[in-house]
Amino acid sequence: MLKTAEHLYLQIADKLELLISKEVLKTGDKLPSVRTMSEEQGVSMSTAFQAYYHLEGKGLIESRPKSGYYVIFCARRLPDMPQKCEAVKKPEEVTVHDMISKMFVQASNNEILKFSSAVPLASLLPTAKLSKAMIQAMRNTDAAGLGYESTQGNENLRRQIARMSILWGGAVSEEDIITTSGCIDALHLCLSATTQPGDTIAIESPAYFGTLQLAESLGLKVLEVPTHPATGVDLEYLDKAIPRFKIKACVFVTNFNNPLGACMPDSHKQELVRLLEKYDIPLIEDDIYGDMYFGKERPSVCKTFDKSGLVLLCNSFSKALAPGFRVGWTLPGRYKDKVLQLKRTRSISCASLPGAAIAHFLENDRYEHHLRNTRKALHTQYLRHLQAVTDYFPEDICITRPQGGFVLWIELNQKINTFELYDQALKHKVSFAPGRIFSLQERYGNCLRISYGNPWSKQVEDGIKTIGRLIKKMS
Amino acid sequence: MLKTAEHLYLQIADKLELLISKEVLKTGDKLPSVRTMSEEQGVSMSTAFQAYYHLEGKGLIESRPKSGYYVIFCARRLPDMPQKCEAVKKPEEVTVHDMISKMFVQASNNEILKFSSAVPLASLLPTAKLSKAMIQAMRNTDAAGLGYESTQGNENLRRQIARMSILWGGAVSEEDIITTSGCIDALHLCLSATTQPGDTIAIESPAYFGTLQLAESLGLKVLEVPTHPATGVDLEYLDKAIPRFKIKACVFVTNFNNPLGACMPDSHKQELVRLLEKYDIPLIEDDIYGDMYFGKERPSVCKTFDKSGLVLLCNSFSKALAPGFRVGWTLPGRYKDKVLQLKRTRSISCASLPGAAIAHFLENDRYEHHLRNTRKALHTQYLRHLQAVTDYFPEDICITRPQGGFVLWIELNQKINTFELYDQALKHKVSFAPGRIFSLQERYGNCLRISYGNPWSKQVEDGIKTIGRLIKKMS
Repeated sequence: MLKTAEHLYLQIADKLELLISKEVLKTGDKLPSVRTMSEEQGVSMSTAFQAYYHLEGKGLIESRPKSGYYVIFCARRLPDMPQKCEAVKKPEEVTVHDMISKMFVQASNNEILKFSSAVPLASLLPTAKLSKAMIQAMRNTDAAGLGYESTQGNENLRRQIARMSILWGGAVSEEDIITTSGCIDALHLCLSATTQPGDTIAIESPAYFGTLQLAESLGLKVLEVPTHPATGVDLEYLDKAIPRFKIKACVFVTNFNNPLGACMPDSHKQELVRLLEKYDIPLIEDDIYGDMYFGKERPSVCKTFDKSGLVLLCNSFSKALAPGFRVGWTLPGRYKDKVLQLKRTRSISCASLPGAAIAHFLENDRYEHHLRNTRKALHTQYLRHLQAVTDYFPEDICITRPQGGFVLWIELNQKINTFELYDQALKHKVSFAPGRIFSLQERYGNCLRISYGNPWSKQVEDGIKTIGRLIKKMS
Repeated sequence: MLKTAEHLYLQIADKLELLISKEVLKTGDKLPSVRTMSEEQGVSMSTAFQAYYHLEGKGLIESRPKSGYYVIFCARRLPDMPQKCEAVKKPEEVTVHDMISKMFVQASNNEILKFSSAVPLASLLPTAKLSKAMIQAMRNTDAAGLGYESTQGNENLRRQIARMSILWGGAVSEEDIITTSGCIDALHLCLSATTQPGDTIAIESPAYFGTLQLAESLGLKVLEVPTHPATGVDLEYLDKAIPRFKIKACVFVTNFNNPLGACMPDSHKQELVRLLEKYDIPLIEDDIYGDMYFGKERPSVCKTFDKSGLVLLCNSFSKALAPGFRVGWTLPGRYKDKVLQLKRTRSISCASLPGAAIAHFLENDRYEHHLRNTRKALHTQYLRHLQAVTDYFPEDICITRPQGGFVLWIELNQKINTFELYDQALKHKVSFAPGRIFSLQERYGNCLRISYGNPWSKQVEDGIKTIGRLIKKMS
C-alpha cells in the first residue's frame, strides 16, 4: 500500500514538473490548493501534500505562509549548455598548475565560502553512525585493528562492495576487489599497473585537474578528448585517436564527470567497451559520482558491459560518507595481480579500522538510506544554484545540466579571464575553480566550475551574487 | 633517590654481564646469593635483586627454585659474524621475486610459526590504550574525522614527532614534517620526489626486499653497496661508486638495518653526509628500527648531521605501536614542497583518525614507557633466539649481532640452498625469509633471516630446532 502511495505522489509531482518545464506553469503562478489537487487527482490530501513537498525540495515551488504554493522556477530563462571543445593537435606533456596548490591552501581557510571543492559539507555526512561503526570495528577486528590487514583489504568491506555491485548491473565477488586509500589511490595504482612513463593516455576535456597531476607524477602524456556536456567523450574522435596517438590507456569519469557533469548513455558505454576490445587497451573508469544521480536509478558503468576484463573500475566512499577515512576500491579486471602487487609494494595494506568501520556501516543497510537523503539534498542544491547563477550572472553565459554529481560548469563571455575573477572573488572571501586548471591546453580561460555541495542559504546566494557582480564589472 | 637506585642496579648488572661475556662466569655457574651480593656491593637486598632480575630478563641468567641464580648464556660458543659482501660489477634492473609474494600469502596463515616477518607480535602492542586514544580522536577531531585533514597531516601528530626529534639530536618543527601512510609510503614519496625512471640508486646489500620492489615499481636501477654487519655501508666504495655509476640517490637503513642489523657509528653517518654534500645527492634514510635499540641510548641518524637538507628521514609507528594504523612520516629537508605536492596528487591526505589517535597516545608520554618495555622484550628475545640458533644449527654458520631491531641474519654452509630449506620448513609449519630475496644478484642463496619478534616459548624453540634439523639433513 505504502509503495503505491509513494508512487502516486511521484506521478503527480512529475506531471507538475513537466508543466513547469514547459512553462504551462510559470514563475510566480499559484498552484491549486492541496485540497483542490487532492480532489482533482482523486488522491488523499496527504499524497497531494507529499507531491508539493517533493517539488519544494527540488526548488521548483515554494510555500508562502497563509497563501499556498507558488512556482519559483522557470525553465525558459536558463542559459544554453556549453558545446564540446575542439580536438587538439597532439598530446601534451603534463605540467603542474600553481593554481591548484593555491586552491588547496585556501581549502583549509574556513572564512572563505567555497564553491571550489566537489565535496559535500559535513552536515550531510552520517557522523554519529560512522563513529558508532568505528567503535564496533575496534571491537570486532583482530587486535583492535593494530595489526596489518591483508593486502587485498578488509574481507567484509569487499563483500559489501560486491553485494552492491548489483546496483550498476555487476555480479562480482569479493575476490575481484582490492581496497585502496580513497579513489585517487585506486587511480594511481591502476595507472601504474597499465602504463609506463612516456606513454600517452586519453582523458576527457575539460578533465579533473587531479587526473592531470597524477599523469604528470607518473611521467605520462595526455590526449584531451573532446567531451560533450551531456553524453561524455566523443567516441568517433576516440576511435581515430587511439591508433593515431598510440593511446595506452583511457581514464574517464563516465557518470556525472568532473567538471562537465556528463553521463554517458548505456549505448555509448557499450560502444566504448567495444573500442577498448578493438584496440586491446584498458579503461580506468572513475565512477566516484555514480551514486549521486538525480534520476530514478543509478546509471550503469562501462564495467557493466566489460566481458574481457579491460575495465578497471575505481570508486570510494569519500563523496558520500567520509572523505577523511580514505576508503576506496578498485575492480581491476585482468590487471588484478599487477595492482595487488603494486599495492603491496607501495603501502603493504590499507589502514585497518576505517575500512572495517565502513563495512559495518554498509552491512546494516544504512548506506542506501543515507544516499537517498544525500541525492535529494544535492538535487535541490543543484536546482537552487542553477537558478541563482541564471539570476545573478550576465545573460551571455552557458551552463551545464548535470543529472548527478556535485558541480556546474559555466562558460562566460570570451573576454572574461576567470583566473583574474578568481583573485577578485578571493578578496570577497568566495572561491570557485577557474576553468584553466582543467586542461593543459590554453583553454577554458573563460570558464569556471561551481560546486553545489553547500546547502542552500542566504550566504550561498550572496556568494553567487558576488561572483556575478564581479563578472559584470569585468565585462 | 629512585633514580640513583635504578642506576645502582644497572651498574651491578653491567658488571656481571661483562664477567659473563668474558667467560669469567660460565654457563652453569651459580651466582652469589642475593644477600651475599647485597653485602659485597654495599647495596640494598632490593637493588641486588633488581640486578639479577634485569639479567634474567636479558636471558643471561636463570633462577632455579630453592637454589639461586645460574649463568645460562655463554659468549664463546657463538658463531662468527658474517663478512660484508663483495662489490658488484654494475647496477641491476630490478625484477620481482615470486618468493616475496609467496611469503606474503603465508603471512595470513596463522598455523605457521613465522620467523619471516619483522613485526612485533600483537601481545607487545598497547591495544587497549590505542583503542582509547582512537575514541578520544573521534571526540576531538573536526566532524569526528570524517573530513579531509590537511595534506601535510595532523598538526598535533607532527608536533609530537617534532618534540621527539630531540632523541636523535634533531630540533625540528612540525612545519618540517609530512605524515604518510606508513614508512613505505614515505619511502615511495621520497623516492618519487628525488628520482626519475631509469635513474640508479644505491642501496645496502643485502637489502630489505621491499626497497627492491619499490625501486622496480618506479623503474629504477639499483646498485648494491657492500655492507658490513656491524657498521653498515662501505663508505670508501660508495665514494667511488657515486660518480662511476651516476648514483642519483641513496636509500639506506642506517640503524639496525634489515636484514643485517648493522648500525652506522656516528663517525660513519657524518662521513656519509659529507659524501652527499660532495656529490649533491639525497639520502632517503629509513630509520624504522631506530627506536628499538638494546644499548643505553637511541642512536643518531644521518639527519642529525645534515645541514644542507639532503637527507629525507623516513619513519613510522608500525614497528612499535600499530602496523594496521598505517601512520608514518618524513622529514624531507629541501624536498619538502615536492614531497607535499606528490602526496596531494596521490592521496590528497592520510586517513584522519589513525594519525589523530597516535598523536593522543604520544601526547600522554605513554610512548616512551611502551618503548622501554618493547626494547627490553626484544633484547631478551634476541638473546634467546641467538642462543637457540647457536645450539640447534650446525657449527659452520655465521650469525649477526644486531644491537637493536627485529632480525638475525644467518649464513649457512655454501652447499645449503635456503630456497629449498624454506619449502621444507613450510611443510613443518615454520617460515623464515630466504636470503636470496634480499638481492638482485645471484647472492645470499645460503643465507636466511630470522625475526625474533615472537616472544620466547617452547614452540618458538621447537621451531628453531626444526629449521636446524632440516639444515643438518641437507648438509
